[in-house]
Amino acid sequence: MINTLHFSSDYEKDLLTCIQKEVDNIGYYNLPEQDTNYIDNYLEQLDKIQGLANISDVVVIGIGGSSLGTKAVYHFIKPVRQLKRNLHFIDSTDPITITNICNSLNLESVHFLVISKSGSTIETIAAYKYTLGLINGSATDYLPFTFITDKNSPLEKHAKKVGGLIVNIQDNVGGRFSVLSAVGLIPLILADVKVDCLLQGAKKIKNSFFEKGYMQEALLKKATFYAKNSTNYNINAIFSYSDSLSFFNDWYVQLWGESLGKKQKNSAFNIGLTPIGLTGPKDQHSFLQLLTEGTRDKSVTFIKLKEFNNQQTVPNITLASLENLDLINNVKFSTLINLQENSIFESLNTSQRIPLDEITIQKQDEFSIGQLIYYYELLTSLIGDLLNINTYDQPGVESGKQILIQKLKELKDKQ
Amino acid sequence: MINTLHFSSDYEKDLLTCIQKEVDNIGYYNLPEQDTNYIDNYLEQLDKIQGLANISDVVVIGIGGSSLGTKAVYHFIKPVRQLKRNLHFIDSTDPITITNICNSLNLESVHFLVISKSGSTIETIAAYKYTLGLINGSATDYLPFTFITDKNSPLEKHAKKVGGLIVNIQDNVGGRFSVLSAVGLIPLILADVKVDCLLQGAKKIKNSFFEKGYMQEALLKKATFYAKNSTNYNINAIFSYSDSLSFFNDWYVQLWGESLGKKQKNSAFNIGLTPIGLTGPKDQHSFLQLLTEGTRDKSVTFIKLKEFNNQQTVPNITLASLENLDLINNVKFSTLINLQENSIFESLNTSQRIPLDEITIQKQDEFSIGQLIYYYELLTSLIGDLLNINTYDQPGVESGKQILIQKLKELKDKQ
Repeated sequence: MINTLHFSSDYEKDLLTCIQKEVDNIGYYNLPEQDTNYIDNYLEQLDKIQGLANISDVVVIGIGGSSLGTKAVYHFIKPVRQLKRNLHFIDSTDPITITNICNSLNLESVHFLVISKSGSTIETIAAYKYTLGLINGSATDYLPFTFITDKNSPLEKHAKKVGGLIVNIQDNVGGRFSVLSAVGLIPLILADVKVDCLLQGAKKIKNSFFEKGYMQEALLKKATFYAKNSTNYNINAIFSYSDSLSFFNDWYVQLWGESLGKKQKNSAFNIGLTPIGLTGPKDQHSFLQLLTEGTRDKSVTFIKLKEFNNQQTVPNITLASLENLDLINNVKFSTLINLQENSIFESLNTSQRIPLDEITIQKQDEFSIGQLIYYYELLTSLIGDLLNINTYDQPGVESGKQILIQKLKELKDKQ
Repeated sequence: MINTLHFSSDYEKDLLTCIQKEVDNIGYYNLPEQDTNYIDNYLEQLDKIQGLANISDVVVIGIGGSSLGTKAVYHFIKPVRQLKRNLHFIDSTDPITITNICNSLNLESVHFLVISKSGSTIETIAAYKYTLGLINGSATDYLPFTFITDKNSPLEKHAKKVGGLIVNIQDNVGGRFSVLSAVGLIPLILADVKVDCLLQGAKKIKNSFFEKGYMQEALLKKATFYAKNSTNYNINAIFSYSDSLSFFNDWYVQLWGESLGKKQKNSAFNIGLTPIGLTGPKDQHSFLQLLTEGTRDKSVTFIKLKEFNNQQTVPNITLASLENLDLINNVKFSTLINLQENSIFESLNTSQRIPLDEITIQKQDEFSIGQLIYYYELLTSLIGDLLNINTYDQPGVESGKQILIQKLKELKDKQ
């Protein structure tokens, strides 16, 4: 008996080859090495038109991939840094949200960033029209809007006609992979976030992965496990032990859900990994019970911050009737929260059949969040390849958009 | 051949009987009719000690069930109402969060609510010690702390020794079912939320359910479907079309996950319904793709707000190159967001095998959120009964607590 195998002998090597082929076509891979001159040019232009010193608040008008990444980085850095400008986000059509944000602004010191890859996102255009209406009512001799969009999009054409500032999104960068493109870097640099450090963090992970570093083995192994177990462990929770990572969790949810919830290329079989974002220790009092005793369909990734750069300590106070908790006296809060993470990790690890891993980032800074972002982008790409899906499209959201257009037309006809 | 059946002939009637039996033992059922005199008495006492007029900010120190419900109601009402006092929430051991909240306060006009059912929640006691340390450093002749806890808990004993204000949680009310008890009502009344309307909303659902109203049929049918399909539709998403419901989503996640993620009573088999909280239209650009094309393991409940009580309209502005979006001109944002909800509902409804339902609440007010809260509490109880689990305990969180205590002891020994 002879049995010659004509499929790849090395699953992981094969996967690496697939990803290396993507690097030329999928824009996000090369963002860590981008030429950032366009940012300086943009700042110069903006300074000429409105004066950087006159801008105290920046409003990001953008939804989904046009704001989630920026929010993740901004809310990670803001709690530990005095930033130059406040960012606000209009990422809804909820009238209460839009009204309350706009009422809180001094329109004379605001700049608006209208961000849409396609250039025709209905929520974004609605909010743009609304804020334009507010601005038209006030007396400014400049247009306080920048348009961040794909080359040749209707929004770029519009911006050219009205003489607005334009920054193009780098080629072939999908919305949910765009935080390290102009989509994220422009608002973040205006806030005063160190975007060069953000890119350096991403580059470190990229190099480690593509140059056979530590991350290559870790990511290939993790992606292979997740893909192989995509039907029995179809829920992937991240448990972040820093409140400042809660918006990173939201970014992860989009990246994961929208990339990995797909019909398979050949079979059109519905497949999907479901992301869950948890924050510790808060969600120990919410979701932990389900993790420990619920169905064994969840993997959990703990994300911990090594250095909180905060020395606050539980004071040495003995509380009558609660003397047993003197145990926490003189313990730094940063030590306490990381001991909590260790304890929950350990308790889940002794439970059976819960795949666990742990990511430690060093500091609450741009370099660390840049690493985390690029790590998750790579992991998503790898799993998408293994699941035999198109990681980068989102055909499932079209139908709802078409129905909305139809309903709006019917509404117009009635008027 | 004879076949005599000795099990209940009426599944739904049987379920109703089970729930009716719970009413005497499980405290939350009767909270809508509670005697609220204790609230008035409390306010009087607080007025005597610190002076209500001197309090501008109230800090809730409590985690999980001690704060999630209060947050849900507060953040639902606050965007549409000028409230008397700001609520702040310390529900973490993250040193950055604690420091930033405390730095933002004027300690002379703050009152702290220390909330813990067991009275020994480690995060809560740590934050209490920390804030007590701050207060001890300033010169007040009163103790600006109220303790909300179970009768005879160590925290109540402590409060008695230091002469602090005490409000007891009603009997047999579990943390995640406690928002309509003193746990939620005390902070909410201090903020100026109409707690009587909140209770009236809850009562309306209770009566409709127990007195064979509309809600009886709806809830029994829904619970039966969810329990019956708990293995194939094990993920239950709520998709709320109002930003003000995002904290309600968080409350739901705890209620659902911690109640329904359990070992079965007889078999010790791991079972669990996984909650997901989504906000529309934002998450149309994040999670929708996974709903439409991912694995068919998710049910979706749309929650919509009928009246936004906001007349803001997309202005009648034609944008060059975006003329096709004139379609949204003169459309109220409240109409637009509800058309979006309709469209996504419709698009998912034409997809196959996604169980959908829709909840409409009337207004952004206390009555409506009270209804929604009690509806979900009842639904959770019903499903728990059908799944043959103890809905009201959380044994799975103990192990992590024990490990933490051990680690803290080891740390002390090293010092």
